[in-house]
Amino acid sequence: MTARPLTGKDFAARIRAQVADAAAAKRAEGRPARLVIVTATDDEASAWYVRSIASAAGKAGLDCDVADLGTTATAAGIADRLAALSADPAVDGVMLQTPLPPGVALAEVSGAIDPAKDVDGANPLSLGRLAAGLPAYAPATASAVVALLDEYAVDLAGARAVVVGRSVVVGKPLAHLLLDRDATVTVCHSRTRDLAAVTSTADVLVAAVGRTHLIEPEHVRPGAVVVDVGTNPTSDGGLAGDVDPAVADVAAALTPVPGGVGPVTTALLLKNVVD
Amino acid sequence: MTARPLTGKDFAARIRAQVADAAAAKRAEGRPARLVIVTATDDEASAWYVRSIASAAGKAGLDCDVADLGTTATAAGIADRLAALSADPAVDGVMLQTPLPPGVALAEVSGAIDPAKDVDGANPLSLGRLAAGLPAYAPATASAVVALLDEYAVDLAGARAVVVGRSVVVGKPLAHLLLDRDATVTVCHSRTRDLAAVTSTADVLVAAVGRTHLIEPEHVRPGAVVVDVGTNPTSDGGLAGDVDPAVADVAAALTPVPGGVGPVTTALLLKNVVD
Repeated sequence: MTARPLTGKDFAARIRAQVADAAAAKRAEGRPARLVIVTATDDEASAWYVRSIASAAGKAGLDCDVADLGTTATAAGIADRLAALSADPAVDGVMLQTPLPPGVALAEVSGAIDPAKDVDGANPLSLGRLAAGLPAYAPATASAVVALLDEYAVDLAGARAVVVGRSVVVGKPLAHLLLDRDATVTVCHSRTRDLAAVTSTADVLVAAVGRTHLIEPEHVRPGAVVVDVGTNPTSDGGLAGDVDPAVADVAAALTPVPGGVGPVTTALLLKNVVD
Repeated sequence: MTARPLTGKDFAARIRAQVADAAAAKRAEGRPARLVIVTATDDEASAWYVRSIASAAGKAGLDCDVADLGTTATAAGIADRLAALSADPAVDGVMLQTPLPPGVALAEVSGAIDPAKDVDGANPLSLGRLAAGLPAYAPATASAVVALLDEYAVDLAGARAVVVGRSVVVGKPLAHLLLDRDATVTVCHSRTRDLAAVTSTADVLVAAVGRTHLIEPEHVRPGAVVVDVGTNPTSDGGLAGDVDPAVADVAAALTPVPGGVGPVTTALLLKNVVD
């Protein structure tokens, strides 16, 4: 078998086109849509990601500012800025980029982002509202996984979904999104015993751990749909997923890295700003 | 096999004794611990549960008031009262009892409870903080399941835990508590296909659906630990669990109903008030 590639580029382009239409309408009303990304790091991968969002925002006709607070920013300083941006009527979306300075926890400061502007679902209240079935933004990566599965008409109701990774930015919110779609959801992690025994029960397997090629063919049930959230830097400057490409011989469908979940994530982030 | 009964009565009594000590110390300081339970229902089972909490609180030396807003209470009226109680320095814990009047959703109004006084973990922010690894109160029932497993030295790290039921008051917060304890966690629900195939993978199986004897011996792996959260009224005025008593022939351990999770839940609720 060679897995069907669940590419995200064309899908993301269509989302971005919708975003551009909405952004143009707002601009015509004299009220351009504005995203502000708060950073406090000199991490190069982070800077690359922020530039890619800013570039995509610009192409879609959104205003996008980067507020760099520097690597010496304190938790109080970051929270204050997030609160001020949340209160600013000219700002539609506020995103806090990680990593943060040592000693500053994302969950501690992201509570200062107004849930109505929390376009990347970083505030614990957004996650709690999501879990409680209330309107809320999910982290864009988690939303992108479900949107991509929908795009390719993967049936989630009653499906066995296994998420590898329990991070608060992907694994946990994704579990709630999948539960909300009536999947039976299992969350695995570094302490899971016999990972292959668990992952091979999955109709839909999502890898979101950040370990290059952790998921090998033996982890995958033949015919499963596999979503690769990993974006691990390679020595030659490229990106490798959490899923071994050899899984394509076993799975029915597989998202590529790059070009799978990633572009959809950025597009949905922008969509949240104009929504 | 006859399963070891994981009774909660003695354990709950020990927790209540600790609570009584803490309550006596607060009273000696001239600052008695006070729980306020807000109700807006004439449901008889609910009234019974509220009376049992109030009775246990009284015996432990806590002040416990019931604020009955009546069956015509509005969402705004309930939220206002919860906010006022949260702001009252003489109140240590605020609990909103369900069911609520038609059209009033728990998750919508419980956001008015200050997370610091949200002793039954009803505010979506409490759930989000729990998921994010921040200090927060979990719903007492979810906490009671983990506390009872700890009391009987059931090892959760690396265990396969299966939770049947995805409610925001038990199943979802419990999934986060179990994940936090390094279990591999699966959440099942009414749309799960072949429930027995999933539940029989569990080292630790928790039933929290509210359907009498849904879990039968065929759902249980021999040697599993089974926790029964169900409290379903029987025609003779008693309580039946979600687990068929015949499961005792298969499981290594099983919580009784009544006398298992229930008393521990009430004790932990009071403990949250004095903490």
